[in-house]
Amino acid sequence: MSLVVVGSMAFDAIETPFGKSDKIIGGAGTYIAWCASNFTPVKQISVVGGDFPQTELDALTARNVSLEGVQVKKDEKTFFWSGRYHMDMNTRDTLDTQLNVLANFDPVVPDSYQDCEFLMLGNLLPSVQSSVISQLKTRPKLIVMDTMNFWMEVAMDDLRKTISMVDVLMVNDSEARQLSGDYSLLRAASTIMKMGPKYVIIKKGEHGALLFHGKQVFFAPALPLEEVFDPTGAGDTFAGGFIGHLARTKDISFENMKTGIILGSAMASFCVEKFGTERLRQINKADIDARMNEFVQLVNFDISLV
Amino acid sequence: MSLVVVGSMAFDAIETPFGKSDKIIGGAGTYIAWCASNFTPVKQISVVGGDFPQTELDALTARNVSLEGVQVKKDEKTFFWSGRYHMDMNTRDTLDTQLNVLANFDPVVPDSYQDCEFLMLGNLLPSVQSSVISQLKTRPKLIVMDTMNFWMEVAMDDLRKTISMVDVLMVNDSEARQLSGDYSLLRAASTIMKMGPKYVIIKKGEHGALLFHGKQVFFAPALPLEEVFDPTGAGDTFAGGFIGHLARTKDISFENMKTGIILGSAMASFCVEKFGTERLRQINKADIDARMNEFVQLVNFDISLV
Repeated sequence: MSLVVVGSMAFDAIETPFGKSDKIIGGAGTYIAWCASNFTPVKQISVVGGDFPQTELDALTARNVSLEGVQVKKDEKTFFWSGRYHMDMNTRDTLDTQLNVLANFDPVVPDSYQDCEFLMLGNLLPSVQSSVISQLKTRPKLIVMDTMNFWMEVAMDDLRKTISMVDVLMVNDSEARQLSGDYSLLRAASTIMKMGPKYVIIKKGEHGALLFHGKQVFFAPALPLEEVFDPTGAGDTFAGGFIGHLARTKDISFENMKTGIILGSAMASFCVEKFGTERLRQINKADIDARMNEFVQLVNFDISLV
Repeated sequence: MSLVVVGSMAFDAIETPFGKSDKIIGGAGTYIAWCASNFTPVKQISVVGGDFPQTELDALTARNVSLEGVQVKKDEKTFFWSGRYHMDMNTRDTLDTQLNVLANFDPVVPDSYQDCEFLMLGNLLPSVQSSVISQLKTRPKLIVMDTMNFWMEVAMDDLRKTISMVDVLMVNDSEARQLSGDYSLLRAASTIMKMGPKYVIIKKGEHGALLFHGKQVFFAPALPLEEVFDPTGAGDTFAGGFIGHLARTKDISFENMKTGIILGSAMASFCVEKFGTERLRQINKADIDARMNEFVQLVNFDISLV
């Protein structure tokens, strides 16, 4: 029984109003693995070029992230993304995208991954995501999918097909509006649930996240921070915390998903404190526990006082 | 011992993407009074013209809102505001402002208001707000002040002076940033607390509200709604719920303020469901209790599951 993560492993170059990074390690799959491996072993599916540092792969292996499903294409280059964040840190411009090895990525699920019970589909081509689902002989207990507006514009049919195959869809607020054609997030979530997923998570960046299931709604705030240094990977880290918690506890009840959402928010609040995955590499269980307690303080109130 | 509310009573004309109102009853003081009178008697300070309907005044009197401090200027006209909301319902353009009776408003605190224990200063000229404070012979137990960006642009000195006299300052996120010169809301609140108030409440519209006190932070979400019909007065209604709860319970602890914030959010969620004060006039205690329970469901999670 295991958690399988599908997602890009990449180089990023990031500019924010507060600074500029060199070419650093990024990619949705990378963030998810760094985060989820705090809670449970991870079996990774991805592709990198010959230029991807072996030390980075070794660091993941040391955290109990299996790389058997990570293809290394010696003569090709790793996916590269470069972007610049605006002052609000919620919006950004893409400066450069070089697909490289991602252009023809054909994921292969190793036999040792066939025990997959929890499947996290990080943001990637919808056809790559669905290919992984199709290769699994036994359907996982829970399939969680992240995606983005780009696929709504260039691959809507594939996207709809993949969405219909998953249990939990994770999108941000503007993507939920675009996908559903409805401005109200409550109605947007309801529309998306009719497309297949029984659960919808809408990420609102610094404004927190919403979990929908049938008529149930749960809201988790983002931690107010003095400094958001680099939001890159925050959504992926959130996903990693959510699926990592569910995979560790093996409990997919709505109640436990709520805790997963809070844990995802806590992990994302670390992620944004430094460039790239730097902060995620530093934290330990005590840091995570302390931050979870901050979330309890942040939202806890006594209804009996009314 | 009583709650005194200072605020405009007005006519509004509102356009939203979903509809357009006639000239309807509005004003910060009106919304606060309609809301707070669910919880405690209100002593109102305001000014209206001869054109303000007597039936509206009678309706407030029937709810235990004392109008002894409301000046009626028979030969003048009531304050008028007209605005148009954008699609996001968080931003709006002012189409018309006619100050009328507000232009020379000189508030007079009646003797019967001198028992004021809780003072709610609705958004209004800072000099009018401070005049009311100065007229009270005994300082109230708690002074809460709402304001807006307009006064930062035209009356910053008066605004700073008034802010230094109050216990709780209530502003929205962009106003907190403008007043503090800091983009981070955590640092903005800290800067504002150095200006005098021991508590800062930052309203984020559909994204909820934050309460700050020293190093403590509390977050209350807004209820996700199918339809936000008209956001006018939501912030004032929020203030009315907050101060109404504190005045009724006579408890100004941080813990009880948290409950006040949730109650304010619950009341605001009713306000936006119809044009103007219409929805606020319809609700009863059972409606309010039911909505408070929705807030508990919305944010409640079990940390023991981690």
